[in-house]
Amino acid sequence: MQTSDALQNFCVRLAETASAAILPHFRNLADVENKAEAGYDPVTIADRDAEAAMRRLIMTEYPDDGIDGEEFGVERSDADHVWVLDPIDGTRSFITGVLSWGVLVGRTSGGRAQFGMMHQPFVGETFFGDGRAATHVMNGKVTPLRTRGCARLGDAVMLSTAPEIFSAEETPVFNALRREVRLTRFGTDCYGYCMLAAGQADIVVEAGLKSYDIAALIPIIEGAGGVVTSWTGGSALDSGRVAASGDPRLHEQLLRHLEMNDG
Amino acid sequence: MQTSDALQNFCVRLAETASAAILPHFRNLADVENKAEAGYDPVTIADRDAEAAMRRLIMTEYPDDGIDGEEFGVERSDADHVWVLDPIDGTRSFITGVLSWGVLVGRTSGGRAQFGMMHQPFVGETFFGDGRAATHVMNGKVTPLRTRGCARLGDAVMLSTAPEIFSAEETPVFNALRREVRLTRFGTDCYGYCMLAAGQADIVVEAGLKSYDIAALIPIIEGAGGVVTSWTGGSALDSGRVAASGDPRLHEQLLRHLEMNDG
Repeated sequence: MQTSDALQNFCVRLAETASAAILPHFRNLADVENKAEAGYDPVTIADRDAEAAMRRLIMTEYPDDGIDGEEFGVERSDADHVWVLDPIDGTRSFITGVLSWGVLVGRTSGGRAQFGMMHQPFVGETFFGDGRAATHVMNGKVTPLRTRGCARLGDAVMLSTAPEIFSAEETPVFNALRREVRLTRFGTDCYGYCMLAAGQADIVVEAGLKSYDIAALIPIIEGAGGVVTSWTGGSALDSGRVAASGDPRLHEQLLRHLEMNDG
Repeated sequence: MQTSDALQNFCVRLAETASAAILPHFRNLADVENKAEAGYDPVTIADRDAEAAMRRLIMTEYPDDGIDGEEFGVERSDADHVWVLDPIDGTRSFITGVLSWGVLVGRTSGGRAQFGMMHQPFVGETFFGDGRAATHVMNGKVTPLRTRGCARLGDAVMLSTAPEIFSAEETPVFNALRREVRLTRFGTDCYGYCMLAAGQADIVVEAGLKSYDIAALIPIIEGAGGVVTSWTGGSALDSGRVAASGDPRLHEQLLRHLEMNDG
């Protein structure tokens, strides 16, 4: 069994490798102009190069582990441990030059998210979690992450990536929630979950997520004292519909509200 | 008359002064807990301290200039030059810990925005513009800003801060535009205009803005080759309803679309 420290040190190497592949394509106007050429898509190129580089490093250092990545699919899914990779979570943020995208690396054990990292290469900040603790690291400064208390849905600040992530069936459920909470803020991508872990927001509600969009974030949220499940209280990993709360009391109300308005 | 270089050097000092007042309150969990005490509002404290410090510096270095700030109002509005200050543009971004807020400093001459800066203290990046040129500065690296070409509204990527900034009258006009463009991204605050200047998006459409929300950004947008006006083509400075385009051909279509759907 790997210690969290060993996993964290290895994740820092993965982050550096991914950053080197991604940053040359961020806010690169030449890329925008080249995009006129058929088949040239800078974000796909950055995504693929970053994932390929991370996969090579994992196969060297953790040859028995499986890998599940956005761009190149699953290898050895029956391994005890599987690395779950999303090189650029928040593609629309990335292509518009704003800063809510990040590199997501998670590691599952027996199908449960056990360790996770969110790294923002341009800003140079990183969030780690192992389900028992979570930390923020920037310029060598390490700060523990703790969710904040919030007992009532009416007092909650909600984060979510965009109105468009919800299906026709999900939209009224989400809109009922928007009317209930104190404030909704869009445009957050992986930062939404990290800011929940940092005690800056109370709930994140999203839909249409793949396992690689959330695997890395689960141990960060749980490590900071939060709860993250599907909309019906099951595992967040494969459900697509994800609900996260900083305060476990709030999560009960959140799930009740989602169920009440579903259908 | 001040050269742009002199103004830019002075703006760097203003940015440092504002950052020192603001950063201790950003993502500060102690602040969140203190907020339970009546009257304690960290973002207001950071806002006021930053503006007071910037005002002191301006009064020392440019004693004949006027000042218009979000927190402390207008002084010497009849001066030839007026500094327009928004210490934290993007309050909701700030209080949720995400990174789309910034310090805005603009300088008007004869009622026209002549020089502007957007500074993001946590990220450490700054955007400058004087209406003829615009630059991005980070870690000492200076990059010119240029908007990108986009001739058709149907191809445009639109940025805007939130659905809630539009009034009941404005919402259908904005929603008609959302249906027309290729992609809409929320949550952008002052970054929306800077990313338009950087060629990362094609239009920004907002409402309910005060002059201090946009004064600093006008010279950046125009300096990068973009256009920014009211929804009816007048000055963006005092209209509240702001429309910006990276490509002047696109701006004509944008204003036509806004007019067509208005009322």
